[in-house]
Amino acid sequence: MQTKILLPEAQMPSHWYNVVADMPTPPDPYLGPDGRPVPPEAMAAIFPMSLIEQEVSAERWIAIPEEVREVLRLWRPSPLFRAHRLEAALDTPAKIYYKNEAVSPAGSHKPNTAVAQAWFNKQAGIKRLTTETGAGQWGCSLALAGQMFGLEVRVYMVKVSYEQKPYRRSLMQTWGAEVFPSPTDMTGAGRKILAAHPDSPGSLGIAISEAVEEAAGRQDTNYALGSVLNHVLLHQTIIGEEAKKQLALVGDYPDMVFAPCGGGSNFGGIAFPFFADKAAGKQVRLVAVEPSSCPTLTKGVYAYDWGDAVGLTPLMHMYTLGHDFMPPGIHAGGLRYHGDSALVSKLYNDGLIEAMAVPQLETFEAGVLFARSEGILPAPESCHAIAATVREAKQCARTGEPKTLLFNLSGHGHFDMTSYDRYLSGELEDFEYPEAAIRESLQHLPKVG
Amino acid sequence: MQTKILLPEAQMPSHWYNVVADMPTPPDPYLGPDGRPVPPEAMAAIFPMSLIEQEVSAERWIAIPEEVREVLRLWRPSPLFRAHRLEAALDTPAKIYYKNEAVSPAGSHKPNTAVAQAWFNKQAGIKRLTTETGAGQWGCSLALAGQMFGLEVRVYMVKVSYEQKPYRRSLMQTWGAEVFPSPTDMTGAGRKILAAHPDSPGSLGIAISEAVEEAAGRQDTNYALGSVLNHVLLHQTIIGEEAKKQLALVGDYPDMVFAPCGGGSNFGGIAFPFFADKAAGKQVRLVAVEPSSCPTLTKGVYAYDWGDAVGLTPLMHMYTLGHDFMPPGIHAGGLRYHGDSALVSKLYNDGLIEAMAVPQLETFEAGVLFARSEGILPAPESCHAIAATVREAKQCARTGEPKTLLFNLSGHGHFDMTSYDRYLSGELEDFEYPEAAIRESLQHLPKVG
Repeated sequence: MQTKILLPEAQMPSHWYNVVADMPTPPDPYLGPDGRPVPPEAMAAIFPMSLIEQEVSAERWIAIPEEVREVLRLWRPSPLFRAHRLEAALDTPAKIYYKNEAVSPAGSHKPNTAVAQAWFNKQAGIKRLTTETGAGQWGCSLALAGQMFGLEVRVYMVKVSYEQKPYRRSLMQTWGAEVFPSPTDMTGAGRKILAAHPDSPGSLGIAISEAVEEAAGRQDTNYALGSVLNHVLLHQTIIGEEAKKQLALVGDYPDMVFAPCGGGSNFGGIAFPFFADKAAGKQVRLVAVEPSSCPTLTKGVYAYDWGDAVGLTPLMHMYTLGHDFMPPGIHAGGLRYHGDSALVSKLYNDGLIEAMAVPQLETFEAGVLFARSEGILPAPESCHAIAATVREAKQCARTGEPKTLLFNLSGHGHFDMTSYDRYLSGELEDFEYPEAAIRESLQHLPKVG
Repeated sequence: MQTKILLPEAQMPSHWYNVVADMPTPPDPYLGPDGRPVPPEAMAAIFPMSLIEQEVSAERWIAIPEEVREVLRLWRPSPLFRAHRLEAALDTPAKIYYKNEAVSPAGSHKPNTAVAQAWFNKQAGIKRLTTETGAGQWGCSLALAGQMFGLEVRVYMVKVSYEQKPYRRSLMQTWGAEVFPSPTDMTGAGRKILAAHPDSPGSLGIAISEAVEEAAGRQDTNYALGSVLNHVLLHQTIIGEEAKKQLALVGDYPDMVFAPCGGGSNFGGIAFPFFADKAAGKQVRLVAVEPSSCPTLTKGVYAYDWGDAVGLTPLMHMYTLGHDFMPPGIHAGGLRYHGDSALVSKLYNDGLIEAMAVPQLETFEAGVLFARSEGILPAPESCHAIAATVREAKQCARTGEPKTLLFNLSGHGHFDMTSYDRYLSGELEDFEYPEAAIRESLQHLPKVG
């Protein structure tokens, strides 16, 4: 029985897929403080024009530069796995496939965009990049990418993750990056948070504020974001493109596609290329899976809000829990984000994709089942997609439906062993749904227009 | 430029290669306390007969059972990489290839034999396996393998590694194994060591003694060794067999093959299939790379000695530093072993393979260079092979020789970040060559005959 479906390097996609080209109505523009659309040039203080053009492009296909492809070949095309042993463990008639993005040197899908962003910045003459990181997967990815092209990288790491995952910091440093626990006293945004909450565990929103502030203030420095923005999701579509080619090699096509959803790049990366088929009339369900304690799509509102915690970014029309919502300290640090990609939000609001929320314990239960059947230890973020897939596969076992399920194994959990320790020792708990905190933060949404 | 040379699953080797068939003179037998060859049946207290038969076989090819191949397909064939970026960083005319064994779920080459051993034990009706582990890579591999076939696994982990690498313990537990820091007070061997050295940091030799003692005392329990023995090296030859096929795909063949050498399975795994060609007259140099602070081949003696620390195993004719030699606490825990495989020792003594020793700092320097050029963070053990390859590639840069070099990237360093931390912060030091300790322990070699 074939386990891995491999794509030769020569068949690695040459273009990224831009979902905007197939959306029934275009996404709403980013707005400035005055409520008017932000002109592309306004983002030039922190992004190179090449990425800004991708951010607003409506072209269906955008070429991947050969220099980027050369670095991606260090791990791409990534293998697609048929999860024979997980299927057997679940005694399900469903066929389960997973795309293994854990094979990148940084251990997740994040380098797909980090490498592209580093290259476009280098082309624009930039010498330094700043960024934020939650679980550390994005920071590692940018550290790796910066190293590949000779750019300096500074990472603001969410403090709770910095403490939970010290080895992610070491990994970033091995790849030559500087790493600081956020909030820091090095930026105005950090100092403001520390003044109000000296013991703040940090959040992605706060760390973004710090990194953006520094990049905006230095000519030689730009900012790189690991998710949310259109060009980031664009760079991740290589995942879904490859998966489609690999499934075609074995004559298969998914009924449902599952991916974790924090900022949206994990989900967009694998799901958007399948959306192209859906837009052309094909039956396929695309499911974004989020933590029940940070339920942006399933419990948030569709409104204009800032991407960061203190209002430095443009306003984005997205599902949000409020920019000052502080998610509980779940172990899937990469999913602790108050908002969501504007593209994912728009598709969800238009009823073209689905979303579901899964509690923390269920995700680790699914992750351990996966590790014990398929071998690979999944990242806590990836466990969300596994949990959703397991739910569906169990449903298939009850109904007898032989559905074809695909999920994105977005990363490995080698740097998340404290989380597994806590789960295995029974110390891990589900958080209550933070209804009051969400109600409170939603009252602080910006007034628009 | 092609980076990864992939082999389809259908071309995964169907047989292991037994180097004994091509050795000019056969290896010397294992001896009992009476100085006479140990009959195969004498090992039946801790090993199944199928593995004992492999241990003494002289057949060139031994079939890999389909059940074993099915599990190996979770990560095999492993990719062969052309290290374009490392070559560029070294400005060398040498062509550098590496076989990436870090892609296994346990992160090293060790599951190749763990899976085979677990399966043959299960076939023999065994319910539990005991073993030792140094850096934790072997213990993880057996935990994974046991889980794949429903066997219980108990791991005695060298105490200094248990403390340096707590997350390896968590990983073993995630795969369902029990883990204890060795020496423990659970075995006679452990209690004996603790009585003499209450603060003993442990060693592979001590941990082996504990695991063997437990297995010998229980009917339902066998012992599994991660290196040294003939059948273990046999199971690893799939590495070199695949590498040969992959190099043939790009029309290449190595001038030199490098691998880390502790107990010998890493080296034997990649090198033995090339030895088959060498025995047939082909020019190829096979180089075992060891730590200068545990220089078994380069500074030890070729003599009969015990494989463990207290004399529970048969006597093996091998290079040894003395069974009670306590190696300095280097970070490549998997290479802290006083002896070496009898097969590797015999070939080295016959002048058919080479050996070199590398100091700790040089190995980490090479590892960081590798991580910053090729992306992948190597295990400290693997850094030994990288360091040796880098030395040779630099020599090629001086002489202009375009040699083809191949090394075994035996594992990743995701669970070795404290070691990288210490290296990057300048806290890591080279150990002095432990001449006095070796001279002392060599006086305790057993008298034979």
